[in-house]
Amino acid sequence: MRKPRRKAEETREDILLKAEELFRADGFSKVSIADIAAALGMSPANVFKHYHSKTALAVAITERHISRMSARLESLDDTVQVSERLLKVAQRLMESHLDDLRCSPYIFEMVLMTADTDFPSGRLYKQLLEEKFEAIIRAGIEAGIYHCPDPARTAKAVSAALASVLHPVFLVRSRPGELPERCEVVVELINAALQNPLDK
Amino acid sequence: MRKPRRKAEETREDILLKAEELFRADGFSKVSIADIAAALGMSPANVFKHYHSKTALAVAITERHISRMSARLESLDDTVQVSERLLKVAQRLMESHLDDLRCSPYIFEMVLMTADTDFPSGRLYKQLLEEKFEAIIRAGIEAGIYHCPDPARTAKAVSAALASVLHPVFLVRSRPGELPERCEVVVELINAALQNPLDK
Repeated sequence: MRKPRRKAEETREDILLKAEELFRADGFSKVSIADIAAALGMSPANVFKHYHSKTALAVAITERHISRMSARLESLDDTVQVSERLLKVAQRLMESHLDDLRCSPYIFEMVLMTADTDFPSGRLYKQLLEEKFEAIIRAGIEAGIYHCPDPARTAKAVSAALASVLHPVFLVRSRPGELPERCEVVVELINAALQNPLDK
Repeated sequence: MRKPRRKAEETREDILLKAEELFRADGFSKVSIADIAAALGMSPANVFKHYHSKTALAVAITERHISRMSARLESLDDTVQVSERLLKVAQRLMESHLDDLRCSPYIFEMVLMTADTDFPSGRLYKQLLEEKFEAIIRAGIEAGIYHCPDPARTAKAVSAALASVLHPVFLVRSRPGELPERCEVVVELINAALQNPLDK
């Protein structure tokens, strides 16, 4: 009896899970598509059919990672006062990156190795940050604590201003001990800007 | 007749100039201490006596580079109004980095290759930025346009907030077209913070 043909979606999922497992164990740069295929009992050609390069695998894995990070931030909206939200979101994201740096360094390896190639996941992360910050700014305006004529433009500025605590290339080069204070003083500066009643 | 013994200072200067010349021509990673010694007609041991490693050479070259960059900023203080000074300084520094990226990429190569080793030039650059921003904040307070209870602390925040347009690791990964606007929106945000009359 012929085995039923598995759906492409399931195969892609198997490949991603196995790739992550091997990257975690041996590092992103040391694992080849052939290694992933062998570990799955598949032909390399079959893996290539679903993911044309290691970069394509890295994009798929980091995009899922970003979505999970984003989902974990949602819960903060209901439990944290608007005035504290910017700080808590920045801290939570920063800690999430630092956890990865300690416990899943292959994620940083993927991001850093592929960042030169105009990595689409970088764009996705930037967009997530800007949307998140725009929502916080709008909530602050509604609550009467923020004044801001153009939340979308200001959200871009907030995201750029927090790059030194939220961007992987900086985090990897920082002394972890410096980061919490840096995060705090930058958020303080941003809050002073958003609370300026004269800002037009 | 014996040649007069050259001062160590002059030898160090010769080594630095030759090293820069070779790094510029062939790239930092491709040039060895032996190459520099050969080009100077010296023994490698003699070069090593003055600079113990290529990193030591990179530190000396980038520190001079930072000092020159800093000196070029001084002239801005007299000609630019206080309210415009932060933007002009940030733009001038950013453009100076982008010039290096185009015309002296070996400088970026040195910074990026040695940044993992807690590069002392990185600390020097950070200190230069913080001093510069603190001076601008103090001038703004004196002129009555800025309000800021702790200029030293705020200068750290300003420096961190501008990292995405002033830090080499970020510049090297950015699309140059995005940078001028990013610089402008972040400075706008910082100015709104510094101008907040309620900030205590």
